[in-house]
Amino acid sequence: MTSKRSSRAADRTEAIMRTTLELGQEVGYAKLSIEAVAARAGAGKHTIYRRWPSKGALFLDSLLYLNEPGLDYPDTGDIVADLRKQIHAAVDLLSGPPLGPLYQALVVEAQHDPLVAVALNERFIAPQADKTVARLKAARDEGQLSSDFDLDLAMAILSGPLYFQFLIAREPLTHDYVDRVLEALFVGMRPRN
Amino acid sequence: MTSKRSSRAADRTEAIMRTTLELGQEVGYAKLSIEAVAARAGAGKHTIYRRWPSKGALFLDSLLYLNEPGLDYPDTGDIVADLRKQIHAAVDLLSGPPLGPLYQALVVEAQHDPLVAVALNERFIAPQADKTVARLKAARDEGQLSSDFDLDLAMAILSGPLYFQFLIAREPLTHDYVDRVLEALFVGMRPRN
Repeated sequence: MTSKRSSRAADRTEAIMRTTLELGQEVGYAKLSIEAVAARAGAGKHTIYRRWPSKGALFLDSLLYLNEPGLDYPDTGDIVADLRKQIHAAVDLLSGPPLGPLYQALVVEAQHDPLVAVALNERFIAPQADKTVARLKAARDEGQLSSDFDLDLAMAILSGPLYFQFLIAREPLTHDYVDRVLEALFVGMRPRN
Repeated sequence: MTSKRSSRAADRTEAIMRTTLELGQEVGYAKLSIEAVAARAGAGKHTIYRRWPSKGALFLDSLLYLNEPGLDYPDTGDIVADLRKQIHAAVDLLSGPPLGPLYQALVVEAQHDPLVAVALNERFIAPQADKTVARLKAARDEGQLSSDFDLDLAMAILSGPLYFQFLIAREPLTHDYVDRVLEALFVGMRPRN
């Protein structure tokens, strides 16, 4: 009985998550509404609001619920190859169609809405940063990074140029660009002797 | 006669620019309006609209008109010291009070409004990037950067972590953070032998 009930709850969550992404792709982030998600998913509006206090929180959870495994780091022992692979996957997911414009809208909404900013940081930026730092730490322990390299800083210099390209310079984020950034960050700008 | 007229025009431009920044600081970017700027500066609303088609364009010009000299690069022959000095000045201007919240609002508006995005890129991001690339090129010619380092990429890896800290991680941008990013980018992440 309990397991049937919890499996029904899981089915309902999955329906709400899928419907949110589907509707978001159909109408765009600005026109997405919790009411429309509730109607199409056959869920109560209040059921959704109880768990997701805002459209931003609902959308963010949908994005992560359906895609989280794709954002985990491999650990093949080669830090550059593993960063490349994970960052290529993240770029494909978050900057290209169909989800890129929705993710961009969410980042913009976080600038206006402190609740969305907190949700974005707690549910995505911070856990993703933790995974990156853990993978970098393993690499540093294996001697693949400078022994005194600040890992939080490494995370910021890996992510920053990609957000810059996407949000500020507004240029497409290609795998080639990712590869060039990685190469530059590992080698450094100083002349090599 | 001509010089009196052009000096009157310059005075009027300066009054509009100063009023825009003053009012922006008083009411915030969201509540700033071209009408209110016109009224306080004693200028015609249409005079302003003819030259600045949107609030974003007007605000951006005001920011640059009154602060541009502070964003030029020194060239003392020491690339790291010169980057430090210019980036500290830019950080003080664009991320701290009183202009930081206004600049942040402008970057957010650029995500919604293609005209503001074009103005931000043409009037600020691209010219600033050109200055950075020119300064980096001089350094590369003097052997202070790797001879094959891609200068556009260098610009993006210098700017990206700062925007990331400011807009995504939403942490304060300190001089210390700038120094650590610069050090990391010059040295690179790979172990040194």
